[in-house]
Amino acid sequence: MTPSETKEHSPMQQQAQTFGYRLLKQDGAARLGEVVTPRGIVRTPAFMPVGTVATVKALTFDQVKQAGADIVLANTYHLMLRPGAERVARLGGLHNFMRWDGPILTDSGGFQVMSLSKIRKINEEGVRFASHIDGSRHLLTPERAVEIQCLLGSDIQMQLDECISLPAERKETERAMELSLRWAARAQRAFSDLAKPGQALFGIVQGGVDAELRQRSAEALVAMDLPGYAVGGLAVGEGQELMLRTLDGVLPHLPSHKPRYLMGVGTPSDLIKSVARGVDMFDCVMPTRNGRHGLAFTWNGKVNLRNARHADDPAPLDEQSSCPGARDYSRAYLHHLVRSGEYLGAMLLSWVNTTFYQELMAAMRLAIAEGRFNTWAEETLDRIERTN
Amino acid sequence: MTPSETKEHSPMQQQAQTFGYRLLKQDGAARLGEVVTPRGIVRTPAFMPVGTVATVKALTFDQVKQAGADIVLANTYHLMLRPGAERVARLGGLHNFMRWDGPILTDSGGFQVMSLSKIRKINEEGVRFASHIDGSRHLLTPERAVEIQCLLGSDIQMQLDECISLPAERKETERAMELSLRWAARAQRAFSDLAKPGQALFGIVQGGVDAELRQRSAEALVAMDLPGYAVGGLAVGEGQELMLRTLDGVLPHLPSHKPRYLMGVGTPSDLIKSVARGVDMFDCVMPTRNGRHGLAFTWNGKVNLRNARHADDPAPLDEQSSCPGARDYSRAYLHHLVRSGEYLGAMLLSWVNTTFYQELMAAMRLAIAEGRFNTWAEETLDRIERTN
Ligand SMILES: [Zn+2]
Ligand SMILES: [Zn+2]
Repeated sequence: MTPSETKEHSPMQQQAQTFGYRLLKQDGAARLGEVVTPRGIVRTPAFMPVGTVATVKALTFDQVKQAGADIVLANTYHLMLRPGAERVARLGGLHNFMRWDGPILTDSGGFQVMSLSKIRKINEEGVRFASHIDGSRHLLTPERAVEIQCLLGSDIQMQLDECISLPAERKETERAMELSLRWAARAQRAFSDLAKPGQALFGIVQGGVDAELRQRSAEALVAMDLPGYAVGGLAVGEGQELMLRTLDGVLPHLPSHKPRYLMGVGTPSDLIKSVARGVDMFDCVMPTRNGRHGLAFTWNGKVNLRNARHADDPAPLDEQSSCPGARDYSRAYLHHLVRSGEYLGAMLLSWVNTTFYQELMAAMRLAIAEGRFNTWAEETLDRIERTN
Repeated sequence: MTPSETKEHSPMQQQAQTFGYRLLKQDGAARLGEVVTPRGIVRTPAFMPVGTVATVKALTFDQVKQAGADIVLANTYHLMLRPGAERVARLGGLHNFMRWDGPILTDSGGFQVMSLSKIRKINEEGVRFASHIDGSRHLLTPERAVEIQCLLGSDIQMQLDECISLPAERKETERAMELSLRWAARAQRAFSDLAKPGQALFGIVQGGVDAELRQRSAEALVAMDLPGYAVGGLAVGEGQELMLRTLDGVLPHLPSHKPRYLMGVGTPSDLIKSVARGVDMFDCVMPTRNGRHGLAFTWNGKVNLRNARHADDPAPLDEQSSCPGARDYSRAYLHHLVRSGEYLGAMLLSWVNTTFYQELMAAMRLAIAEGRFNTWAEETLDRIERTN
């Protein structure tokens, strides 16, 4: 075997004690690479299934692995409230708790505080808020967010940032962006005290849809020499066009030898168009949430299984799929399960969609490796954006 | 291999074109046997997981099979309303629709009409009722119940009967029992017109908790020479003692060369004590319903995972279990999933309980085979009735 074959087939043999990123090939702006962590390699571009409260909803982690995921995301905000970070640490860390031995990325909780907690107050120190579960009061600071993520044992941490909702005044956007930069510096200091070798802290570029603010945010974070950079505050209702334009303004300011993560994105089309611009990592609840609501993603477009015209259809969603949920069950049966509100409907369609998202990323990686990403993207976008 | 070894290890090689029951061994009144169907052998005593609307809730049928079940139950009432019996027939029958290739027993719908439909009217012809889903009007007669079950393609059908709620006046109990007998005769005629070779129709003994009425019902049904007999109208709140006493009055009147099925039962203790009296088949929603509510059955008793004292417990439910749900996940994690209302909690605990019920039946079969059922039952009842 050549070294490159080893790398492809046995990522676990490549375990490193340090965190890193390898750019393997570029095709236009699209990047084929690997994020290297002590818990394994993440093939990029990568989609991270979301395990909000230590479970990817309606799936076992065996299914998530079988679907092809190298890394999953978990939510700091949810886990700090229940079961609690100190408890997870006592139970051997999040990997052991939820039975996932690959890399885990955790967000910082900033976004969820803003979207889920009705009572919250932000100041220089951090954000005070009331739990959406039981109303208990909490303080999340840049330092505590790092501490929590260290207690969870996540492989890639995110700095605490302030996410504002769009549209927003420029002045408000600037204030939040600058606060997020000061929090990044505090997070970096806390991380250097608390983290273990091989763990990484990513900075988050903010600045709304203002190109100049985004550039200032990116340049300041790059000057801090963090091991990876996320683009936050997008996919919050601004629309795909504005999201991509903002991305076009940010990505040239990020270093090519570090991974770029677009937070909370998105549709298959969002993923393809963002990879075309040089994004390496994504997360989104869309595959599982849509699965629970009866919508399936396939290589021939979206299928709304609630629709009555599937009631008598003996065909599976995709007989070529590697996912039994897509290959072995009739649309008629899936329709019946969805209409009946049965667990198995959510289980099978979450499995179908999680597998499809991984197949989509694998297809992108192959297209980049073979230097035909743009052709592939054009053909694919036509097929998968249909609704059946 | 001896013929008896073949029988134990390769039930699928024993496929028959006719329905039958073999009594292999008796230990006291407890019976070890086999129900033989064209779709495979059912090792008895058997517990049938309940797939109400063509899915055993929160499980795949692969998991149900892996748990050790030879046969599952599906509900005629639910399936006639959604997706509809004619539709299931067009889609290739219930086995194909829900992807279960072993035997299926279907109830007749009588019990559910009484318990789920708020608007219903019973007369000699049958029962008119309004669907609990959409209010649509339906007529279920003994003939239509057979026709529906033939359309579904079930291997073991149940006659339409009238289930009354307990306590009831003797006169009312007698009227319903006699109506059920006339319906049994009509079902038998319809079945002989419509059914395929190898399918079976069971009669249902009624008569409330009145020993004399139960005896009359049993004797009349036995005179009809049906291939199997169920005891219906029990486990509806009368308590275990009265249920077992009623069973003691019925079972001596049933022939030993035909299977006996106690409908809708029950707890592990109910199963053990009923097997001790000579019952061969059971069904109940308890393993999956309790699983969804956070209660696990184990060989060391019931475990209520909602309970706060499991929050920090790293031990699995049962490290000896063949079920990954019981063996591989900590009680702390299961507690977290149950408290968070996550799908995976229901999925894992339904799996745990469905597996436990099959392990319980397998242990009973082994104890009967080895002639030590009573000793086994005494020891086991002590262990499994605890609540942890
Ligand atoms: Zn999203
Ligand atoms: Zn029951």
